[in-house]
Amino acid sequence: MTKAQRIHPIDVILHKRDGLALTDAEIRAFILAIVERTPRKHLVTDAQIAAFLMAVFLRGLDPRELATLTAAMRFSGEVAYTEALNTFTIDKHSTGGVGDKTSLLIAPIIAAAGLAQPTPEGVPGICVPMISGRSLGHTGGTLDKLETIPGFNTQLSFPDMRDVLRECGAALIGQTPTIVPADRILYALRDHTGTVESPFLITASIMSKKLAEGLKALVLDVKVGSGAFMPTYEKSKFLAQLMVQTGEASETRTVALLTSMDEPLGRFSGNWVEVWECVDIMQGKRHPMSSDLIELSNILSGWMLHLAGHATTPEEGAELSDDILKSGAAYKAWLKIIATQGGDTTVFEDPASHHKPNATRVLKATQSGYLAAMDCKQVGWAVQRLGAGRAKPGDPVSAHAGIESHAKLGDRIEPGQPLFTLYSEDSALLDEPEQMLRETLQVSSSLVPRRPLVREVITKNNIQ
Amino acid sequence: MTKAQRIHPIDVILHKRDGLALTDAEIRAFILAIVERTPRKHLVTDAQIAAFLMAVFLRGLDPRELATLTAAMRFSGEVAYTEALNTFTIDKHSTGGVGDKTSLLIAPIIAAAGLAQPTPEGVPGICVPMISGRSLGHTGGTLDKLETIPGFNTQLSFPDMRDVLRECGAALIGQTPTIVPADRILYALRDHTGTVESPFLITASIMSKKLAEGLKALVLDVKVGSGAFMPTYEKSKFLAQLMVQTGEASETRTVALLTSMDEPLGRFSGNWVEVWECVDIMQGKRHPMSSDLIELSNILSGWMLHLAGHATTPEEGAELSDDILKSGAAYKAWLKIIATQGGDTTVFEDPASHHKPNATRVLKATQSGYLAAMDCKQVGWAVQRLGAGRAKPGDPVSAHAGIESHAKLGDRIEPGQPLFTLYSEDSALLDEPEQMLRETLQVSSSLVPRRPLVREVITKNNIQ
Repeated sequence: MTKAQRIHPIDVILHKRDGLALTDAEIRAFILAIVERTPRKHLVTDAQIAAFLMAVFLRGLDPRELATLTAAMRFSGEVAYTEALNTFTIDKHSTGGVGDKTSLLIAPIIAAAGLAQPTPEGVPGICVPMISGRSLGHTGGTLDKLETIPGFNTQLSFPDMRDVLRECGAALIGQTPTIVPADRILYALRDHTGTVESPFLITASIMSKKLAEGLKALVLDVKVGSGAFMPTYEKSKFLAQLMVQTGEASETRTVALLTSMDEPLGRFSGNWVEVWECVDIMQGKRHPMSSDLIELSNILSGWMLHLAGHATTPEEGAELSDDILKSGAAYKAWLKIIATQGGDTTVFEDPASHHKPNATRVLKATQSGYLAAMDCKQVGWAVQRLGAGRAKPGDPVSAHAGIESHAKLGDRIEPGQPLFTLYSEDSALLDEPEQMLRETLQVSSSLVPRRPLVREVITKNNIQ
Repeated sequence: MTKAQRIHPIDVILHKRDGLALTDAEIRAFILAIVERTPRKHLVTDAQIAAFLMAVFLRGLDPRELATLTAAMRFSGEVAYTEALNTFTIDKHSTGGVGDKTSLLIAPIIAAAGLAQPTPEGVPGICVPMISGRSLGHTGGTLDKLETIPGFNTQLSFPDMRDVLRECGAALIGQTPTIVPADRILYALRDHTGTVESPFLITASIMSKKLAEGLKALVLDVKVGSGAFMPTYEKSKFLAQLMVQTGEASETRTVALLTSMDEPLGRFSGNWVEVWECVDIMQGKRHPMSSDLIELSNILSGWMLHLAGHATTPEEGAELSDDILKSGAAYKAWLKIIATQGGDTTVFEDPASHHKPNATRVLKATQSGYLAAMDCKQVGWAVQRLGAGRAKPGDPVSAHAGIESHAKLGDRIEPGQPLFTLYSEDSALLDEPEQMLRETLQVSSSLVPRRPLVREVITKNNIQ
């Protein structure tokens, strides 16, 4: 690069500060300067990155800038090269919720569909190279749930992940330091510089990591309601639109479903209890409290099967998904994935027996009426306080802490009826969460209509 | 402070980011966190300060926030406590220009007026506790000019400065690390995070340092035109209004004059040459090229004398100022200040003989016409390149480098007539500045009317 072509980080900051659209070269140079920093190479300081982030927060990014930023971050480290498998790679990503364990069902459902229709090379016809995250704040983390399975190894390299995909049609792994290092650096700074909640920066962070998996298609589950990360429906919708735009700009078919997070999804919220709930479902034991979970998992899987060309409509895909669940094929794929990644599948024979909280408390209704509303974020924080989640990255989580829901919004309840059972490894941790749950439950004398699980679907065709 | 009252820097960033007005307590807590940082006490990181600065840059500050920020910075270190002198303390501050040496004339003029009318305690009736800065970029620095005087000590403590004021009515000192430490920290970060040009941050930076002098009144010389720091007239005016508002909010009578920086002020631009020019004027030798300098110095001094109650109008003050200059009283005060601060006053006996550049070059006109325009910033950079200024803080400056102007805007010029004489200590440094000066001079066949020296006066009474 000649001297005249060099782009200085300060100029990128100034241009964004002044509301200009950054050139692709400027964005790439800035991200490169971030990841190529070493103690000896001061290409850009933390203070400069923070100034850039705040300028982006307040000025925004146009679709081209956002796509370029996402791509620059995506290629800042190792990418999965799943193209080598010659299969249809697809994933699902959720913006995070309480009791949201659809990944544990969807990965084996799609894997089973792929295993049933292998490519001429003998690779499953659809593969799910799923990189999951950990619990943070009020939301649970798929990785923490999976790690309650004895021996299960989520720390696979990309080549090892490709082997698992070839074998099983899905792999369930965690973030590694070599994947999208730019995001790790940016995220650590965003966290303490007040630049977390930018829809542009959130999109670049999520989509760079998902696209690094090498996807042909991606289904996004963007939560709305009291347990959603975004504070309003409109903000969730805007984020969904940005993510769909950005995915499509990278030639990845991308669809986003705006789904309700007004109450915990399914029967359990925690870690092992969520694995247990999914294993029950895959084994054909459908607990009434799991209906919303099964419905949402089938809808999301249905979209994935549709995008992969295995169903002519998402609805047809959802039916196919439910068939795969009911037939036991998903459970078979699940056992294969878990075993291939080193997990002990004997724990699934009687999952309830592996739930070993030291302390249990039942929260009962004190009045009659209809369960009308709750602050689902508050419920998530109660789960975290029981020990199932973490307040800050790096904290340990408890395998056995969590809650069991005994009623759903709209249910008729009577005094003395159990509403939640709280589980913890430490009885001293029960009081505060019990109080938090009690405070947030609203009982009404008249029936409040339930809102539909899926509120809106965003595709490239309906973004204005 | 109880836990409930603690203000966290991150919340201050979030509030400003979201466009809220910060509370006084938030602003004070943030500035306190900045200055109380040590390697052991990580109250706030560079990245957080940068995010705050960018949020302020883009969101702005209301007058109360700006006054509070300025006060918090002012009291972040040592303040002058000139109240102890029981005199009328006043200063002048310029936003920086080329050949702008009015401070060297104004300090002795006001000192002379004060010495002529001492208080009952025997202290001069008006005192000028002037803290000056160094040359940076295209602008000159009073401190660099003063330091060409052998033995002259600008590094006085505040107690020592008070002794000089009591004796001489003016003291000419430099910034010390104990004065407004918050500004030093903020400025170092602003410089490389793209947050320099904020009128709010500029106001807080300038006014915190000036108000730390303990002033009853302040006259601001805000430059406009091609050599001004601010890029447009409107931006200079907005800055002037903010500074006047902020000074008045601290019970310091504050007036701002918008003055022309379309060409270098006076005859010389450099370091020793500017001292020489002022000494000539104070000795009664008025070179024709110094007229604009004398006029502006009298106008600014006139406002100071008026605010101090020694003249009923600024115009009357300007006449009094010129009388003080002509009578030799200013020169007497000057000799006293210089001697009291350790300077060798014998160099003023024949200042021309102390101008010792190793290399000289005369730039001559190549066509006839009227000198119509120049980019005065470019002229300032030429002076810097000759060795008189510095490109970055800490660089050394040459005492003898500089330029002499032989024509003013609007003057009739003929081919072969000298326009500038360039001085440097190194003949290799002449070519580039000569080229820069030649490029920027515009000669027109018709007379272009000169713009008035003072374009507008901003007082608390005319800010909308």
